[in-house]
Amino acid sequence: MEPETVSKIAANSMTKGDVLAVARVAGIQAAKQTSTLIPLCHPLMISSVAVHFSLLDDRILVEAEVEVIDRTGVEMEAMTACAVAALTIYDMGKAVDKAMVIGELALWEKSGGRSGTYRRTGSGSTEDANNS
Amino acid sequence: MEPETVSKIAANSMTKGDVLAVARVAGIQAAKQTSTLIPLCHPLMISSVAVHFSLLDDRILVEAEVEVIDRTGVEMEAMTACAVAALTIYDMGKAVDKAMVIGELALWEKSGGRSGTYRRTGSGSTEDANNS
Amino acid sequence: MEPETVSKIAANSMTKGDVLAVARVAGIQAAKQTSTLIPLCHPLMISSVAVHFSLLDDRILVEAEVEVIDRTGVEMEAMTACAVAALTIYDMGKAVDKAMVIGELALWEKSGGRSGTYRRTGSGSTEDANNS
Amino acid sequence: MEPETVSKIAANSMTKGDVLAVARVAGIQAAKQTSTLIPLCHPLMISSVAVHFSLLDDRILVEAEVEVIDRTGVEMEAMTACAVAALTIYDMGKAVDKAMVIGELALWEKSGGRSGTYRRTGSGSTEDANNS
Amino acid sequence: MEPETVSKIAANSMTKGDVLAVARVAGIQAAKQTSTLIPLCHPLMISSVAVHFSLLDDRILVEAEVEVIDRTGVEMEAMTACAVAALTIYDMGKAVDKAMVIGELALWEKSGGRSGTYRRTGSGSTEDANNS
Amino acid sequence: MEPETVSKIAANSMTKGDVLAVARVAGIQAAKQTSTLIPLCHPLMISSVAVHFSLLDDRILVEAEVEVIDRTGVEMEAMTACAVAALTIYDMGKAVDKAMVIGELALWEKSGGRSGTYRRTGSGSTEDANNS
Repeated sequence: MEPETVSKIAANSMTKGDVLAVARVAGIQAAKQTSTLIPLCHPLMISSVAVHFSLLDDRILVEAEVEVIDRTGVEMEAMTACAVAALTIYDMGKAVDKAMVIGELALWEKSGGRSGTYRRTGSGSTEDANNS
Repeated sequence: MEPETVSKIAANSMTKGDVLAVARVAGIQAAKQTSTLIPLCHPLMISSVAVHFSLLDDRILVEAEVEVIDRTGVEMEAMTACAVAALTIYDMGKAVDKAMVIGELALWEKSGGRSGTYRRTGSGSTEDANNS
Repeated sequence: MEPETVSKIAANSMTKGDVLAVARVAGIQAAKQTSTLIPLCHPLMISSVAVHFSLLDDRILVEAEVEVIDRTGVEMEAMTACAVAALTIYDMGKAVDKAMVIGELALWEKSGGRSGTYRRTGSGSTEDANNS
Repeated sequence: MEPETVSKIAANSMTKGDVLAVARVAGIQAAKQTSTLIPLCHPLMISSVAVHFSLLDDRILVEAEVEVIDRTGVEMEAMTACAVAALTIYDMGKAVDKAMVIGELALWEKSGGRSGTYRRTGSGSTEDANNS
Repeated sequence: MEPETVSKIAANSMTKGDVLAVARVAGIQAAKQTSTLIPLCHPLMISSVAVHFSLLDDRILVEAEVEVIDRTGVEMEAMTACAVAALTIYDMGKAVDKAMVIGELALWEKSGGRSGTYRRTGSGSTEDANNS
Repeated sequence: MEPETVSKIAANSMTKGDVLAVARVAGIQAAKQTSTLIPLCHPLMISSVAVHFSLLDDRILVEAEVEVIDRTGVEMEAMTACAVAALTIYDMGKAVDKAMVIGELALWEKSGGRSGTYRRTGSGSTEDANNS
């Protein structure tokens, strides 16, 4: 995204309001809606969702952490939270920067669930993460 | 994603079922839920949503077209449909290919709405689109 | 259903509460959720939903009327209202009469929409309608 | 329903798309929405929903199996899945066969829950089941 | 509210229908939607919701009781049920009594959850409760 | 509420986050969900929702403005927004101030709709408004 858009968001001077605060709520709410959005996801009693933003020069990284006490992983909940938080940033910024792109969305780390622990490896530097 | 994952999806031999059929429904349903997901989106009476997939060697492109008879653009509805369709592909494929990445999500073209017509320009070849 | 179940519902003496009042609200609410339930239904601004019950000896007929000012028919909204109202009756009665069957659900009459007016014909006496 | 409608659905040649794939997703999603549709149903963490179709000459049987690890039965979830899957078939077929009827919806078997195991008996042959 | 409005509701003679029956269902349904309404509320598998009304001369008291088997309190679910039940009474009565006010909404008693048992004290007579 | 709670909210130093930002989003989202919450409310294509907070010594006033281009009033949408925004403030503040009360919720002004313009009169000073 345009560096100016990041600056405006950082300064909370976008005309549509506090972009990151709204995007955080949207991400949290979306995590709780995952099973109604993704057909083969089961409903889960998520016990914690956190959405974090890191503002870089020309991008905002979106990271979500989701916890549950259950027999299953919650990677879909975390990725749904990131996707909807990023879409909300796009929505609130599109009037000034319609060419914004929502970049790579990937799973970084999970533990628990049938498939056990997973940690992303290789060239993916954090700058490539989630929402560029 | 792994070429083998694309092949399996193309051959409809994933154990979780017909991935693209499920992802298409998920995308259509998500488009209709946009205003409950993205806080500053207004409810719209969408008159048509279509979700298309193109299977390339190591990626699936996801494209959504949304139409509405209203005073507003529907780019958020189309992007939400793409994001949720892509998340559904990830969900149904993650057992065999957890390193899958949901690539760039961007607006390609819109007409109507207060801000008028927009068409994405420049280096973005179709391979970079939506869901790599 | 058992004649005794109908009598109890008529007398409002089911232990779970006023069955028809709850089923009516459930049907009305479901009509408004039709586009989130039936994937290819578009969201509509329904302007009126009414759910009627007729108590016969061994069955309850459920009828729904839905109106909308739009270019489309609302038969799916009416049928969804009937189905969910009938399921609610089943749910509230199942403790005393688990063999209850939700009978034929059919469109009786519609006007407007692309396909114009439709009126069901033939042998379908009213006793066969909706919820036997 | 008209034998021709069944044939077209079997051949996946309905103009609205793959009817059974869409109906299956609709049924699964509806099972997860049961507690928002049926007022006295509690939210449950369903661990598995499957929707099966059997194509006969002039009807499609819809069967749903739902599992949950909880103190309660899930017959309402299964019946809601069947009803919404059947409504979706009607919706996607109504352009060619508006006289289609959604036939008897009944509980075939359940185990667990306070009321224990139930198995439907008597004359109800499978041809009369669910969606005629 | 006007004493006449209370009388009409008590006599079930409001033109919009059985106000308390509809408000009760609305409150129950809202309790189950709490986590989609209140951003920081987690989804819970509520095992029981009851909404009670007491008709006084010029007001209707709305009380909700919610139970859950979980590590958390359910005061938000109960308060959401009261608020939505009261809004429904307002909605169904506003044609005859637009000056109606939804009075104080407060927590009366809770047990369980991290913060333990709470019981409201002091001058709050029951007349001041919930919905005046 | 305790003056200290208001101060903490004003200083954005509540441990649960930016209370007013979250409550604003919750109120906006709730306004769009009104027809799924209040049984006899029809779905509307709301074109604008704004939620305002005024911090007084021992209370926070919550005001919502909703606009729609339609044949109907939107007072229920505005009151639902206020109720849910207030419940969100309660939820985020209850760890430090459980005796908080959500005060009077009333309609201040509406125009349009079948019943025309309404403006609240009389003794209701602004201190009595919405959320005390």
